[in-house]
Amino acid sequence: MKHFLHESDITSLGTWLAKGRELSLDPGACRNLGKGKTLCLLFFNNSLRTRLSTQKAARLLGLEVMVMNFGGEGWVLEFEDGTRMDGAAAEHIREAAAVVGQYADLVGVRAFAGLTDPEADAAERVLDGFRKYSGLPVLNLESATAHPLQALADALTLEQHRVAQRPKVVLSWAPHPRALPQAVPNSFVRMMARMPVELVITHPEGYELDPAQVGPYQPVYQQEEALEGADFVYVKNWSSFREYGKVACQDPSWMMTAEKLGSAAFMHCLPVRRNVVVEDAVLDGPRSLVMDQAANRTVAAQLALMHLLESL
Amino acid sequence: MKHFLHESDITSLGTWLAKGRELSLDPGACRNLGKGKTLCLLFFNNSLRTRLSTQKAARLLGLEVMVMNFGGEGWVLEFEDGTRMDGAAAEHIREAAAVVGQYADLVGVRAFAGLTDPEADAAERVLDGFRKYSGLPVLNLESATAHPLQALADALTLEQHRVAQRPKVVLSWAPHPRALPQAVPNSFVRMMARMPVELVITHPEGYELDPAQVGPYQPVYQQEEALEGADFVYVKNWSSFREYGKVACQDPSWMMTAEKLGSAAFMHCLPVRRNVVVEDAVLDGPRSLVMDQAANRTVAAQLALMHLLESL
Amino acid sequence: MKHFLHESDITSLGTWLAKGRELSLDPGACRNLGKGKTLCLLFFNNSLRTRLSTQKAARLLGLEVMVMNFGGEGWVLEFEDGTRMDGAAAEHIREAAAVVGQYADLVGVRAFAGLTDPEADAAERVLDGFRKYSGLPVLNLESATAHPLQALADALTLEQHRVAQRPKVVLSWAPHPRALPQAVPNSFVRMMARMPVELVITHPEGYELDPAQVGPYQPVYQQEEALEGADFVYVKNWSSFREYGKVACQDPSWMMTAEKLGSAAFMHCLPVRRNVVVEDAVLDGPRSLVMDQAANRTVAAQLALMHLLESL
Repeated sequence: MKHFLHESDITSLGTWLAKGRELSLDPGACRNLGKGKTLCLLFFNNSLRTRLSTQKAARLLGLEVMVMNFGGEGWVLEFEDGTRMDGAAAEHIREAAAVVGQYADLVGVRAFAGLTDPEADAAERVLDGFRKYSGLPVLNLESATAHPLQALADALTLEQHRVAQRPKVVLSWAPHPRALPQAVPNSFVRMMARMPVELVITHPEGYELDPAQVGPYQPVYQQEEALEGADFVYVKNWSSFREYGKVACQDPSWMMTAEKLGSAAFMHCLPVRRNVVVEDAVLDGPRSLVMDQAANRTVAAQLALMHLLESL
Repeated sequence: MKHFLHESDITSLGTWLAKGRELSLDPGACRNLGKGKTLCLLFFNNSLRTRLSTQKAARLLGLEVMVMNFGGEGWVLEFEDGTRMDGAAAEHIREAAAVVGQYADLVGVRAFAGLTDPEADAAERVLDGFRKYSGLPVLNLESATAHPLQALADALTLEQHRVAQRPKVVLSWAPHPRALPQAVPNSFVRMMARMPVELVITHPEGYELDPAQVGPYQPVYQQEEALEGADFVYVKNWSSFREYGKVACQDPSWMMTAEKLGSAAFMHCLPVRRNVVVEDAVLDGPRSLVMDQAANRTVAAQLALMHLLESL
Repeated sequence: MKHFLHESDITSLGTWLAKGRELSLDPGACRNLGKGKTLCLLFFNNSLRTRLSTQKAARLLGLEVMVMNFGGEGWVLEFEDGTRMDGAAAEHIREAAAVVGQYADLVGVRAFAGLTDPEADAAERVLDGFRKYSGLPVLNLESATAHPLQALADALTLEQHRVAQRPKVVLSWAPHPRALPQAVPNSFVRMMARMPVELVITHPEGYELDPAQVGPYQPVYQQEEALEGADFVYVKNWSSFREYGKVACQDPSWMMTAEKLGSAAFMHCLPVRRNVVVEDAVLDGPRSLVMDQAANRTVAAQLALMHLLESL
């Protein structure tokens, strides 16, 4: 069975990007592919872009869509096996996932990192529970450690705007008042490793990404040095992996500015805090690609759903 | 006007079960029956199975669906007539139901028992309010005292798995940390009374179901005795009716085990608390029919909606 | 680009009312007008009538609909420009609106008055943010100072029930335990100014509507005097504009009664508190038009959506 849990579920990235270019030009080209099939989107966390773009993509493929906010509308889930369920959890992931499998043909799941227990987060118990027990092709709508739909949209955006044969792409950490997951940078780094780009990662000491997620890499601790000659600058906050889930640094000098950006293109997955992560002049300036990225979320979701539909 | 409020709205159970067998084989057989009609599903309580299976069923019949979580998305309702509405309630059921009647052709309502006032629960004021004031055929998505969609799915499941001409069916109470409504056992007992089965009900003393709901019956207080020779064991917790809404017993010896179950088939409406209501070995074993029951929820909802559509 | 933000977006009211009459008789007459287009409905506040009637209207026009409760399902928004977003707000209206613009063809927004800061409310920052930044035709689903869909439904209802050439219409303030916005009376007064009616506005002293919204008018402080010879009585509570957002009066003698109403028709936008705003005898009596008004919400939404679709 085909899933879209991780960037590695894209076996031929070149083929996907080419197909994405076609869909950008003709979004309704595959309008009947999902006819008579139902996609169930389950949100364990808030969502704007993913919620709307995935619905839009599904309907462009002729799919029926059912959306459910699992936390507020369903039951508290248990994930551990063998436990005595006499606490808050009213249903086990085994039953919940299997039941969804009775009513849908495809299932999408959003479940963020809890950011308290790195092993629990790495286990991806919500997403993996649906993979194991639903019997359905599963679409990752952002999980604890990966956001492959975003990374695919980012790859599509880079391809559309790339001038150099092998552009320099800088992933630049940014300050943020709250602890955010590492899913987006994890997926972005993995995706860039498959693209014809030179990737440089810059962040304060202590903000190293999990090597088990992104492989070993040499961070550049001086942002200025990293940004030199950049073609694309991808700005993103994440919380510390070493001091798991902590906000270890809020140094405002890491904020992206128009001056630092220079002639590079600016990317961010959104939502973004203005004048904390990046200054207004960048977002409102001509080098921002954030709306291209947002638009490509629909294309990415179409590609992922088309991949899942091959299983049916 | 035809409603599906209660098992008694099924006038010919045999015909329904036969039609259900057909729909199981060909779920899209009546794809145009509801074309151009809209079903509005109103949830006053959480729901997973009912929410998804009823949407699925509706679309299989060509119906448009609007889903609304009444509590969080609408207004607090008043149910009493003649009251001065200067408290929390912003709208009376008379207006709310009549308004829904302007925008939909069919309405489904989920409104659980409050479990504090037995008379208020027995009055089914939410469900009955929609029956009286919406002007629409009403579908019960589980009310204070009845869950006929579940009972119909259970009947379909029993029919599919029955070997004996007149199987022995045991309804066996189970412990649970929280106070749960009696809607499911009420409907199950009433449904079994119309099936060619021998029904035995076993629960601790004090857990007698409301005779006004299920008629007089002779409970067996010894679970072991009740289970002897069972073909199907339907396990379910409910709170005390006598001490209304109380958790009067949490005796873990009432939990269903593989040993107790023996060669009988296991049934439960879900959600279920593992190793409190039933041990893992049963749910994960070959005698569990819980996913068959869940799958039959779609068939049951299709049958009920087809019944309602006869009014239009 | 065409919007439906305000009654003034209706350039030819007569044409709209005539088209509304046609749609009342044949709701599916324009079933293909919105085909292949998507309407996104964003609720920053609760909604029953608007939520259901706008969905219904959209589908009658062949539109796809995505519904989102922005507060609970999305991110807290920032509206000020140039601010440093290190507080609760995770996303700026500039990005949020522009992103929605990537996934939908039309957007509807409900965002009530906060009733603490009159200037912030008058600025209509949510609605106006979507107008400025989404790039889409925008539908007002009730904003801080206007509810044009309700006013249009009210105009349709008046037209259907008018006997006199120039009927006397009385807008009569009513008591209410909570502070309610002025959006409905603002829009009603503006709409009546365009209809062939004699409008009389009656309320306690201190409840004058904002002249910047409704223009200068001469209130009648004696309800009895105002009601004399009325053909239609539109009852509605609103909080004080002078003492902004305060409940300055709860005098129960302002409640509408069957005796006061006499032979006039009764109108209210709903939800309504029985025996606080209006007595049961009126709502349950033959002169109530509240369900006609509710039914006309679908027609009004169809007209507004058809207007927006002209931009596409």
